Parts: sequence; structure tokens; C-alpha cells
Amino acid sequence: MIADAQALTDHAHEPQKIRENILEVALDYLAVGIDPSQTTIFIQSLIPQLFELTAYFLNLVTWNRLKHNPTVKLEIQQKGFGEEVPAGFMVYPVSQAADITAFGAHLVPVGDDQIPMIEQTVELVRKFNRLYNTDVLIEPKAVTAQHARLPGIDGKAKMSKSLHNAIYLSDTADELARKIKGMYTDPNHLHVNDPGKVEGNPVFTYLDAFAHDKEKVASMKAHYERGGLGDAVVKKYLLEVLDPFLSPIRQRRHEFASDPQGVWDMLLKGSVAAREAAAQTLAKVRHAMGINY
Amino acid sequence: MIADAQALTDHAHEPQKIRENILEVALDYLAVGIDPSQTTIFIQSLIPQLFELTAYFLNLVTWNRLKHNPTVKLEIQQKGFGEEVPAGFMVYPVSQAADITAFGAHLVPVGDDQIPMIEQTVELVRKFNRLYNTDVLIEPKAVTAQHARLPGIDGKAKMSKSLHNAIYLSDTADELARKIKGMYTDPNHLHVNDPGKVEGNPVFTYLDAFAHDKEKVASMKAHYERGGLGDAVVKKYLLEVLDPFLSPIRQRRHEFASDPQGVWDMLLKGSVAAREAAAQTLAKVRHAMGINY
Repeated sequence: MIADAQALTDHAHEPQKIRENILEVALDYLAVGIDPSQTTIFIQSLIPQLFELTAYFLNLVTWNRLKHNPTVKLEIQQKGFGEEVPAGFMVYPVSQAADITAFGAHLVPVGDDQIPMIEQTVELVRKFNRLYNTDVLIEPKAVTAQHARLPGIDGKAKMSKSLHNAIYLSDTADELARKIKGMYTDPNHLHVNDPGKVEGNPVFTYLDAFAHDKEKVASMKAHYERGGLGDAVVKKYLLEVLDPFLSPIRQRRHEFASDPQGVWDMLLKGSVAAREAAAQTLAKVRHAMGINY
Repeated sequence: MIADAQALTDHAHEPQKIRENILEVALDYLAVGIDPSQTTIFIQSLIPQLFELTAYFLNLVTWNRLKHNPTVKLEIQQKGFGEEVPAGFMVYPVSQAADITAFGAHLVPVGDDQIPMIEQTVELVRKFNRLYNTDVLIEPKAVTAQHARLPGIDGKAKMSKSLHNAIYLSDTADELARKIKGMYTDPNHLHVNDPGKVEGNPVFTYLDAFAHDKEKVASMKAHYERGGLGDAVVKKYLLEVLDPFLSPIRQRRHEFASDPQGVWDMLLKGSVAAREAAAQTLAKVRHAMGINY
């Protein structure tokens, strides 16, 4: 799902940006190998059933519960909303519950920070099924990644477009090399012979995530820590690891990007299929509630 | 519109009651003379566009603003929700803005207590039109009744089913007579010759609203206030006024009630028409937002 409606909850003032991002996200999906012939890719706002399901779920959760969602609380702080937080943003965990349950998802791949969203969904599923004495809604489980979220190339906790600290699937080989060269490392590792810190050093975090030769990484870490291994050497190795990984992705992305209309057509076709699936769930939901007039 | 989805915001646990009430409300509409050949009567939850429009509006209003809606605050108190108020209930003014604007309503007949809802709608219309540089949404105006809300027959501020203090359009002539006979009057008007109070006396409030002979009402009020006019006489006059007013309504209601399926068919047909109208507005809304993929 490409969550354009959710993006509007904190970007209502720039729908044009959201429209552009739909294509970018779709290209990323296609580039990493998600295959529309096997996986339905669709645009959230083109599935009206999600809005309706959200409305019914909103009656099953208290205002107070939403206020205390830890992820939302943190995001409000990060975004500096204060008291001026849009109501749509406050209720987005409920909209996510609709996104998940409309398609009967059993497993939802999420970052650690999104686990409260799955918990909210499970709560809503249980409440709905109990209240309407049914089993139409399925309880999802969170699947978290083996590696936690990658830090930004500036060492900050999170890659973010607005912080300009991210490596993109669309980056050329030159851009990738340049970004790796400029990556944050241990700021106290001034000379090659100084001992360096591996922890909090994004170059090693990336190597942990992407290098297959774990022994080599372990020995580089030991060398770096006792001193004598320069950042340039570690970074060169990271480029050797990342470029062959990203190169076919970049290549596929480039090919798909040459036919934006084809990508849009795929998304619209996927949205028709998603609409049919969501309509089936909604019919069951309305039947369970006894409002299937 | 029959607002079943809104009824769910504080009655999510009893959808069966809402389903039954749909027919009752439709019968009331038909009984008082709303003519489906001239006026579209429809069921809110059968218009999916309303849920979607609500979602976009929710991004244009702050959580804080909703919290301070005076009508909602009062209702939370009356219903004893406290902190456990359903999120759907908190956002219902936004859903009402969708109900109003989806059909381009210029005028909305409301009770005094609902004026904050029209104000919220006007705010949302202005914000939407300004933000998306458009004029697709129309600012509504409230139309309030000449007579304020009728008090309950027990003298309480509001007629309410749960308080058993209401006269229904479905009441038989006998029930009407019985209810008027039992109406609350001035509790200190014990003997016919005692001076009585007209203010806060629902029998006179009803006469003000329904009696055409204003002079007769004025003279009865004066007589009641100086003493010598018994409650039974005033109530008898109220019955003489109300019964001919309610009798044709009751008659029509009875006729329509003999064909509940016909009423449901009318509602479903009206809902198709309403859906088409709402879809046109929503298409304009999405176009204005630039999300008309």
C-alpha cells in the first residue's frame, strides 16, 4: 500500500508533493523486486472502504487511548505540533488498523517504532470481534526486521529526506560513492593510528547489515578499535559491499522510471483489485454489525 | 439524511437499535409530509464519500479545536463519558461538515444547540477553499426554528426517548390525551384559585408553539396567572389544538408503517441518488486537492 491519505494527515498543505511521492515509492517497490504480478500494489486513498472501516473503528477506541499512543506522542514532539496537532494525525493509528484488517493481514512487517500501531490494531480487532460476536477480523502480528532501522549517514538515528542524510535507491553509483565518503564516523578517530569506536559508527552499522563476510567485518572492527585502520579503508569496503547490492536495484528503478504512465497504470489496476478485496471485508463487517441494509 | 453512522459514534454497542430507528425516523419524515418524489431521503452509512470527505477534513482541524466544541463538551458531560469518550464521538462535528458540504447545502435547519456544528463546518469550508485555492465547497448558514426546542412533558429541557417524556408522532389519540393529562405544570398551582406560573410551564410552551388563536392563549395565560383557571381546562385546550394537528400525521404514519419494505426501498433508492451527488462533490474535492489520480 502507498499511504497517500496517511501522508495527508500531516502534509495536508502539500498534496502535490504526495502525488509525486506516490510514483517515487512505487518505483522503489518495483526496484527492490516487488512484482505486481504476484503482489497487489495500490494507493490508499483509492480504497473508499478504508475510510468507512476507520469510521467504525473510531467508535471503538477512546479519545484518551489515542492521546497516549507512544509513537504518536513522540511524533507530535518531533514535528513540533504541540496543541495544534491535526485531528487526522491523532487518529492515524486507527486508519492503519483499517489498512491492515481490510486485507486480513496476518503478518505486518514494521520498524520497532511502529509496534504500538500493531498493538492498537490487535486491540481494535478483539474489541470488534467481541462486541459484534464475530470472527471476521483477523489479529495481525508484527514482523520486525533482523537489523534495526539504519541510521542516517550523518550518524543521526533516522534517515530522512528532509535531513538530507539518506542513501536513496535512486542514487547513481557516483552519488553513492560520494555519500559513503562523507559518512559520519567516530569524531575522535583523527589519525589512522588512533583507536576508533565501532559502536554508533554508521559505517560499521551498514557493514553489519549488508556485508556477507562477517569474519572480515569482525576483524576490521577489532583493527579499528585497537587503532591502525583508517576510515577511508572501511568506507572503501562499504562501497564494495553496497554498490553490487544497489546496482541491480538502481538499474531496475531506472528502467521502470522511463515509463511513469506504465507505473501509474499498474497502481490503478492494483487499486481496483484492492478495492474488491476491501469491499468483501467491509460487507462482512457490516453484516457482523447488523447494518447490512 | 438519516444519520445511522453518527448514531454509532455513541451507540456502537447497539447497532440493532439503530437499524430499527432508521425505519422509525423515515416514517416520521414521511408522516410530516416530506415527499420522496421531491426530496431525497437517504441513509448516511450508505454514502461512502462522506467517510472519505470526513478523513480529509480531519486533517484541517486541530485535536484541540475538537476538544473545545461547546456542544460536544456538554454532550460528553450529559452522557457521562468522561475520559472514555469514543474518538468517533469527538470527531462527529467533522463528519457533519462532510454531510453538509457533500450536498452543497446552503441552509441547514438546526436547533440552537447545534449552531457550533455549523460554525465548525463554515471554518472547514473556508480552510479547505483557501488552502486548495478553490471554491468547490459551499459555506452553509444555520436556520433556527421560530420556536426553540420543546421541553419534555415532565418539564425537563428536552424530550428524550430514554427519559420517557416525549410525545411521538406515532402516538395514538388516546396516548396523546393521556400524556397531555399527565403533563407537568406549575407544581405550586395546587387549587384552581391559586395564581399559577406560565413561565416554565410546558402546557403553555406547547400552546405558544401550536395554537393559532394567539389571543385566546394570551387571555388564558392572564387568567392562569391571576388564579381561577384550572390545569385541566388548559390541558383540554392543548389537546383540542394538538390532536387535529397530529391526527393527519399519525394517519399518514400508520399508512406508511403498513409497508416497511416500501419505506426501505425508498431509502435505498434515495441513497443511490445521494451517492451520485456526493461522488460529484468528492471528485471536485479530489481535483482541487490535486489527488485525482
